[in-house]
Amino acid sequence: MIKIGIVGGTGYTGVELLRLLATHPQAQVIQITSRAESGRQVSELYGNLRGHFDLAFTEPDPGQLAACDLVFFATPNGTAMKMVPGLLEAGCRVIDLAADFRLQDAAVWEQWYGMPHACTDVLAEAVYGLPELNREQIRDARLVANPGCYPTATALGFVPLVEHGLVDKSSLVADCKSGVSGAGRGANAAMLMGEVGESFKAYAVAGHRHLPEIRQTLSGVCGGPVGLTFVPHLVPMIRGIHATLYARVLGDAGDLQVLFEQRYADEPFVDVLPPGSQPETRSVRGVNHCRIAIHRPQGGDIVVVLSVIDNLTKGAAGQAIQNMNLMFGLDERTGLEQVALLP
Amino acid sequence: MIKIGIVGGTGYTGVELLRLLATHPQAQVIQITSRAESGRQVSELYGNLRGHFDLAFTEPDPGQLAACDLVFFATPNGTAMKMVPGLLEAGCRVIDLAADFRLQDAAVWEQWYGMPHACTDVLAEAVYGLPELNREQIRDARLVANPGCYPTATALGFVPLVEHGLVDKSSLVADCKSGVSGAGRGANAAMLMGEVGESFKAYAVAGHRHLPEIRQTLSGVCGGPVGLTFVPHLVPMIRGIHATLYARVLGDAGDLQVLFEQRYADEPFVDVLPPGSQPETRSVRGVNHCRIAIHRPQGGDIVVVLSVIDNLTKGAAGQAIQNMNLMFGLDERTGLEQVALLP
Amino acid sequence: MIKIGIVGGTGYTGVELLRLLATHPQAQVIQITSRAESGRQVSELYGNLRGHFDLAFTEPDPGQLAACDLVFFATPNGTAMKMVPGLLEAGCRVIDLAADFRLQDAAVWEQWYGMPHACTDVLAEAVYGLPELNREQIRDARLVANPGCYPTATALGFVPLVEHGLVDKSSLVADCKSGVSGAGRGANAAMLMGEVGESFKAYAVAGHRHLPEIRQTLSGVCGGPVGLTFVPHLVPMIRGIHATLYARVLGDAGDLQVLFEQRYADEPFVDVLPPGSQPETRSVRGVNHCRIAIHRPQGGDIVVVLSVIDNLTKGAAGQAIQNMNLMFGLDERTGLEQVALLP
Amino acid sequence: MIKIGIVGGTGYTGVELLRLLATHPQAQVIQITSRAESGRQVSELYGNLRGHFDLAFTEPDPGQLAACDLVFFATPNGTAMKMVPGLLEAGCRVIDLAADFRLQDAAVWEQWYGMPHACTDVLAEAVYGLPELNREQIRDARLVANPGCYPTATALGFVPLVEHGLVDKSSLVADCKSGVSGAGRGANAAMLMGEVGESFKAYAVAGHRHLPEIRQTLSGVCGGPVGLTFVPHLVPMIRGIHATLYARVLGDAGDLQVLFEQRYADEPFVDVLPPGSQPETRSVRGVNHCRIAIHRPQGGDIVVVLSVIDNLTKGAAGQAIQNMNLMFGLDERTGLEQVALLP
Repeated sequence: MIKIGIVGGTGYTGVELLRLLATHPQAQVIQITSRAESGRQVSELYGNLRGHFDLAFTEPDPGQLAACDLVFFATPNGTAMKMVPGLLEAGCRVIDLAADFRLQDAAVWEQWYGMPHACTDVLAEAVYGLPELNREQIRDARLVANPGCYPTATALGFVPLVEHGLVDKSSLVADCKSGVSGAGRGANAAMLMGEVGESFKAYAVAGHRHLPEIRQTLSGVCGGPVGLTFVPHLVPMIRGIHATLYARVLGDAGDLQVLFEQRYADEPFVDVLPPGSQPETRSVRGVNHCRIAIHRPQGGDIVVVLSVIDNLTKGAAGQAIQNMNLMFGLDERTGLEQVALLP
Repeated sequence: MIKIGIVGGTGYTGVELLRLLATHPQAQVIQITSRAESGRQVSELYGNLRGHFDLAFTEPDPGQLAACDLVFFATPNGTAMKMVPGLLEAGCRVIDLAADFRLQDAAVWEQWYGMPHACTDVLAEAVYGLPELNREQIRDARLVANPGCYPTATALGFVPLVEHGLVDKSSLVADCKSGVSGAGRGANAAMLMGEVGESFKAYAVAGHRHLPEIRQTLSGVCGGPVGLTFVPHLVPMIRGIHATLYARVLGDAGDLQVLFEQRYADEPFVDVLPPGSQPETRSVRGVNHCRIAIHRPQGGDIVVVLSVIDNLTKGAAGQAIQNMNLMFGLDERTGLEQVALLP
Repeated sequence: MIKIGIVGGTGYTGVELLRLLATHPQAQVIQITSRAESGRQVSELYGNLRGHFDLAFTEPDPGQLAACDLVFFATPNGTAMKMVPGLLEAGCRVIDLAADFRLQDAAVWEQWYGMPHACTDVLAEAVYGLPELNREQIRDARLVANPGCYPTATALGFVPLVEHGLVDKSSLVADCKSGVSGAGRGANAAMLMGEVGESFKAYAVAGHRHLPEIRQTLSGVCGGPVGLTFVPHLVPMIRGIHATLYARVLGDAGDLQVLFEQRYADEPFVDVLPPGSQPETRSVRGVNHCRIAIHRPQGGDIVVVLSVIDNLTKGAAGQAIQNMNLMFGLDERTGLEQVALLP
Repeated sequence: MIKIGIVGGTGYTGVELLRLLATHPQAQVIQITSRAESGRQVSELYGNLRGHFDLAFTEPDPGQLAACDLVFFATPNGTAMKMVPGLLEAGCRVIDLAADFRLQDAAVWEQWYGMPHACTDVLAEAVYGLPELNREQIRDARLVANPGCYPTATALGFVPLVEHGLVDKSSLVADCKSGVSGAGRGANAAMLMGEVGESFKAYAVAGHRHLPEIRQTLSGVCGGPVGLTFVPHLVPMIRGIHATLYARVLGDAGDLQVLFEQRYADEPFVDVLPPGSQPETRSVRGVNHCRIAIHRPQGGDIVVVLSVIDNLTKGAAGQAIQNMNLMFGLDERTGLEQVALLP
């Protein structure tokens, strides 16, 4: 059994980790921390966990966390980078679900996150935890930076096109839509049901923190800069991300359906749908899959890729467990074979 | 492995059965029928099942169904009663998720369902599949009538009070609220999102078919007629039932919290919450649990019981699988240990 | 033109007042205060008001408010009672949409609101602003206590039964359901869409502040104490209240449909629906109407009354404007003749 | 008073017309037809209209309709074109809210709508009813083709860019999102709340009927073909369209914010928001406004225009009434000065 600690377990990423770990056959959560809820049973905060965990939140204590084989950070940005060096030194492995280790260029990180990076040396060894790109490095990593939700959906949709140079990489467009759980569980008037229910809007059009992360991934894949316009939107639903991706095909790109099918043939969590499909976010609700469809409307030179994930699962906690499975030599699918809840 | 057939698998009850059976370690779905979708892969109709089933809908054929150990009927009312006698004769066992075998009095059934009953002899041997009341009979049953959703939530909330004669059984009130999936997946303008979204209403106030079913259960428990006012309402959400139950306590009823805790102490799927709790329907989303809280507002003589289930799980497919487990000698919880999806 | 001030205009009650006053032919909003948003245009906070108001929030200043003919308080409980005596002295009339003047018994108020009442003398002259009960007193009132949302829906449904002594007043049940806007626009994690979307629950079962208010109204009508069980619930929608009311009919109560129709025959904002109706909350979305239906299920002795309002309109700002119209000698319907937004 | 007939008034466009006409000071609805609901009061079908109309649906009868000054068609595609020639001959004026007269090229119409056009001669005189483009022709038109919902939101967002040749018109992208009421009120399992609630998806990616309509408008404005990729999506909400528009700016396009502000300075129903804005669909719920914001993310050469309307108001019935006002010499805003319902 992998002995697991979770730092900052009171948010939606935390409860999703607990939901998935509750039925994982090789994982045992031995600690979960929260300054605010210290002493309270997790099942008191989250009624769905009643009967599954007999575990109370504790104050975060590096000494105690050191007893874990693996520590998940489900904390606000800027927290993990202060604790991770010590935990690595103590022999723990770490998966950070926040953004502290996602951008390899510390200067870019500091620009977008508005604070200095606390451990650029450790940053250098962090592996970006997108198994479909970095599976082998993840296996051996001490520290995995779990990708953002939009970057996961967007990268999986663009990668096959970009890595083969089939599209004009200077004018990519990612029009993305997310359910409200992506904004977390903090008290925030802007995310009240009275504010976001029955309405739809774009946000952060001027620049969202996931933009440099997507750019880094795509640039890495194609070996050069990419021009990307990324517009996130807020959907009045709880879970789910839908990325609608646009790119201009260069020359004769061949059969893009086949390209995607071959690229992801061996991927347990990427499902390339039959031609003509239009995936619904509910088809991945609560599961770790990304479902993708490829279109060329009217046979023109614009390829449209539709990519859906559950922002809390493949976009956060599920992918983190997929990474855990790789790091600990388990079958990548262990504990992740649920069926999406539909309807 | 239990060889399973599902008759009428295209509705919400059908897809919920498939979702749960996909990860059940002892069940193998070998047939699923639908006249309308015959020949189509189930995963084509329900995107969440992709990768879990390689199975196409077929025309219902009694001869082929006879190869099953167990047949679930997820059909409109009136269908099962025509096919069940033959299947029993062929040695199959049957769980009917529709209403054909729920009311023991055929005359009452005919009055509420508006058609003659096709097999009153078989009706006599049907066992009402509420394990918390009829566990032992279910184990040996050839034919189980799976309870309705409202009757499940309501009965579990009233039974401890009624079976001990602690409340005035002549003036029970069940004010119940259901998500829209309870109305099924048929094309029906009244259930369009444009009609039921962002609105709330009562329906069937004059009389709902679940009223005689609840009455039958409670009368059976207390050995006499009960006076019940039952008002169902439609909530703009997909899954979940919330029953708010009112009864007048007679004399000194003792500690009702303790009463409920003792009544359900050994029940794997009934969770009596701590005093002062107010269960949310989301705490049981996608799982087979009923969560119950007991209140006596202002210490008066009215007891208020709050009871929540997922109408498609404990209120339909989950309870059907719980019954299957009992009928086939498995641990009652087999395949039903998911954690509710929250948020 | 009535010169109007609004104290505390940033919440949902405030924006609803502004929405309705924008098209009221006799009202001119000359001041709107908010400490937090002072200096900001109201149309900046509420995009729907662009083009309708050229008005900025100001710090609340009793001296400036004194220039108003009428001041609405849309503040948290406990604020109005500190400012109202001065405003009355200065010659303003006041409608308080909070609870400060709703309960005539200051001791009861203090028990439920947890603070001493600041002006019990002024409290004595406050008129409870339910026009269907107190129309004449409202016309002459200097200070109107605008009713709560649940009390409005519940009182209008129970009054015809109770004032004629037709039901057992010792065992009334009000099972009420509200949209989330009733909880206001404050930052509150419990009201995030991620928390309340796609779920349903009861709350405040042990005792809600609207309980003594409803009791006061019904006791006033029947001249004696009433026994009322009141259970509020939260519906995953934004606007709307649905009260499902239960009472036991005493003896031969006559035709209750006719009773209600006669009681409300001259009421512009109470609509008694035809027999067999089941009103939807959306039928009153954004309008000042209460729609009511009366049922006696199975012809028994329990009468079920269904009563719907929009919690922000007839349950708050609309009723406040109805009261304003009465106070200033206008036709009661002035500015309140919109059609509900459906779908 | 304009005497008005509505053909096919049982859908969402019909009830929205009635809602708006109920308070229009110069309009009197004298006939509303529906084969299916003939004889039924409109207020029986739509509870929100109780007290506003004393009018029953009738069988459509060209002779009786001829008594109207203006006939609105709120019918399925293909109906109006059969009745319009006769009505024009009888001296009626007509606004068709369906698609029969939207495409000037009958061959293109037949390709996208799958049926022959019944009156190409009358088609030639139809005026496309987008007042911001064709105000003067609308004033004198006998027959107005009321634009589609997506085409309205998209055209208003692209026109200022395209008519001045400021963007590459060969690679426009319109990523559009609509609430479910756009699909109408027909019984359709795909639009059940159980199917579309809590989920998001694209649809008609291969080609939507609004594509040739948008192309026609933009081509007309710039005098040449345009290359447009149009992807519609379904949002789990009832009302609202959000168009996110992408175009590549050519050379030095100047200040686009100023361009839009000047273009729409005199338009009563187009509201160009301040720089940096991100309009919410709820800011136009129930009103005839289009709110637009212009962005150039990271100062690059991609301009992103955000355009929101209510699909039933500016996208259908509101715009139809705006056209009626123009046709009958009224102030364009008559009856359309409501404030959007928020929250």
